[in-house]
Amino acid sequence: MFREAGVQGLVERLINGDKRALARTISRVETGGEDVPELVRGLYPYTGGAFSVGFTGPPGVGKSSVIAELIRIYRAEGMEVGVISVDPSSPFSRGAILGDRIRLADHFLDSGVFIRSMGSRGHLGGLAAASKLGALAMEAYGVDVVLYETVGVGQGEVEVASVADTVVLALQPGSGDAVQALKAGVMEVADVICVNKSDHPQAKAAAREARQALEIGHELDPESPLPEIVMTRGDAGEGVEELRRAVDDHRGHLTESGGLERRRMGSIQEFMLSWTRAKLEDRMRQRLDRQDEDLVNKVYRRELDPISAAETLYREV
Amino acid sequence: MFREAGVQGLVERLINGDKRALARTISRVETGGEDVPELVRGLYPYTGGAFSVGFTGPPGVGKSSVIAELIRIYRAEGMEVGVISVDPSSPFSRGAILGDRIRLADHFLDSGVFIRSMGSRGHLGGLAAASKLGALAMEAYGVDVVLYETVGVGQGEVEVASVADTVVLALQPGSGDAVQALKAGVMEVADVICVNKSDHPQAKAAAREARQALEIGHELDPESPLPEIVMTRGDAGEGVEELRRAVDDHRGHLTESGGLERRRMGSIQEFMLSWTRAKLEDRMRQRLDRQDEDLVNKVYRRELDPISAAETLYREV
Repeated sequence: MFREAGVQGLVERLINGDKRALARTISRVETGGEDVPELVRGLYPYTGGAFSVGFTGPPGVGKSSVIAELIRIYRAEGMEVGVISVDPSSPFSRGAILGDRIRLADHFLDSGVFIRSMGSRGHLGGLAAASKLGALAMEAYGVDVVLYETVGVGQGEVEVASVADTVVLALQPGSGDAVQALKAGVMEVADVICVNKSDHPQAKAAAREARQALEIGHELDPESPLPEIVMTRGDAGEGVEELRRAVDDHRGHLTESGGLERRRMGSIQEFMLSWTRAKLEDRMRQRLDRQDEDLVNKVYRRELDPISAAETLYREV
Repeated sequence: MFREAGVQGLVERLINGDKRALARTISRVETGGEDVPELVRGLYPYTGGAFSVGFTGPPGVGKSSVIAELIRIYRAEGMEVGVISVDPSSPFSRGAILGDRIRLADHFLDSGVFIRSMGSRGHLGGLAAASKLGALAMEAYGVDVVLYETVGVGQGEVEVASVADTVVLALQPGSGDAVQALKAGVMEVADVICVNKSDHPQAKAAAREARQALEIGHELDPESPLPEIVMTRGDAGEGVEELRRAVDDHRGHLTESGGLERRRMGSIQEFMLSWTRAKLEDRMRQRLDRQDEDLVNKVYRRELDPISAAETLYREV
């Protein structure tokens, strides 16, 4: 049997809704092969129709159960959903499906849901860039919404969440998460706060703590609107309709104010910078490996200081 | 009163042991002013005599109490100690000293201990580069050991820990920390594992879990030696002498094998790359702001794909 080969064939199958072509495309953009530029050039005109939601927060908050319920809501309306998970603790990221996670397992078998996990290292241009390319492939395939799932309160997670139109920060009652998030600069990228496990005795206190943390952030930047705080119980499906509405409201306001366009342009700019940075870094590393062992050696022997050595490298590249 | 001004004066006061000159020098390298290259050039010849230990691990593990005890041990031998803390949850990082943390408060008042916290954002060349420059200033001032304290299991923390001669990963019993650390790639940078809260009922299980995680990592890279696992109880000072010995042993082996030289040269190379990368990124951002709004716009309007746009930017820079 003759199989259509090459990048153009792959793109054609992808935009015609071939799920295996989507899986292969994401693998290629993730590993960063030589044909990635051609692949992205081919699929890019078919993108731009979907919206995206980024979920971030510490492990154990129950993001996955909230996302699973949100998928159910979107699916009930006939929307196709793509999920990009970069949370190693998430069941979405695990190859195996736990037997008792029926709702999640349903999504794995649903042809209107495409779930993809990304390792957290070794992507050309970084994880945010790889996630963005994966999302573009999903858009060209035809999903209506892309959900990003990330973990933690580090800068990497903030970057990934920032490729989304709306960022949901999930917090856990009784954990002090809100204060941690504020300190780590995650609070300021949150558009909606989701306090999960609303049946927890400290759930209300957690919402209050989140409100206070938001107000502190708000004092620093009075222009930015205060994010809505939603209480959910993902495992029971409670509050996720409200969360969905809060996400829609946020995107609605953003669209009206012109903020969505600015945000998406900002995301494009960040992608371009990451990609260019990665190429330059490759070149610098090659240069250092090839001839500038001597430069490093001189610094090691205290004959040259590290900044002067870096300036020399800079002039050469 | 005439005060000696300029970078040379500052460097002179620093190498003569003026604590305020050290504080000012670190502030300058942290904020990245124009005189940083001259400052580093001035102080660099006076560095190289100290060794360094990086501490990483999730918040709440009790790293600070272990570090406080380790400082006490070093101080009892007459060594001067510098601490660079980039853990926002650490008492070292807080301006205020809690009344009940007597041991820590003692260190704040001890003239042989210099503690400095670094914000986690906004450093030219990144946090690792800023920490490295801060450590160089401390070395020129005369400390014998630099302790880096970082938090979390993200890539940023791994980078900071990697500027150290020896990396200690602190884990907490009953938390599943070891598995998280393995997944996040932190296990493979650990030289010594410290299971703190050794009085915890699951302390032994945690050590076993850490051993297993290490062995999995070891299978992937059989050349690397298996890190020693030490049980500590920082708040009671227990086990910290053993931790100190494990750190010394690690550095001893590293020195003998030539690994220390390789590691320090690697750290220099990473610093040079970060610095050069930051300068190039500044230049790219200026370029994008100045004239390439149009490039971003074209991508936004789907007239050009993001990788082609990035390649154009790359050729221009």
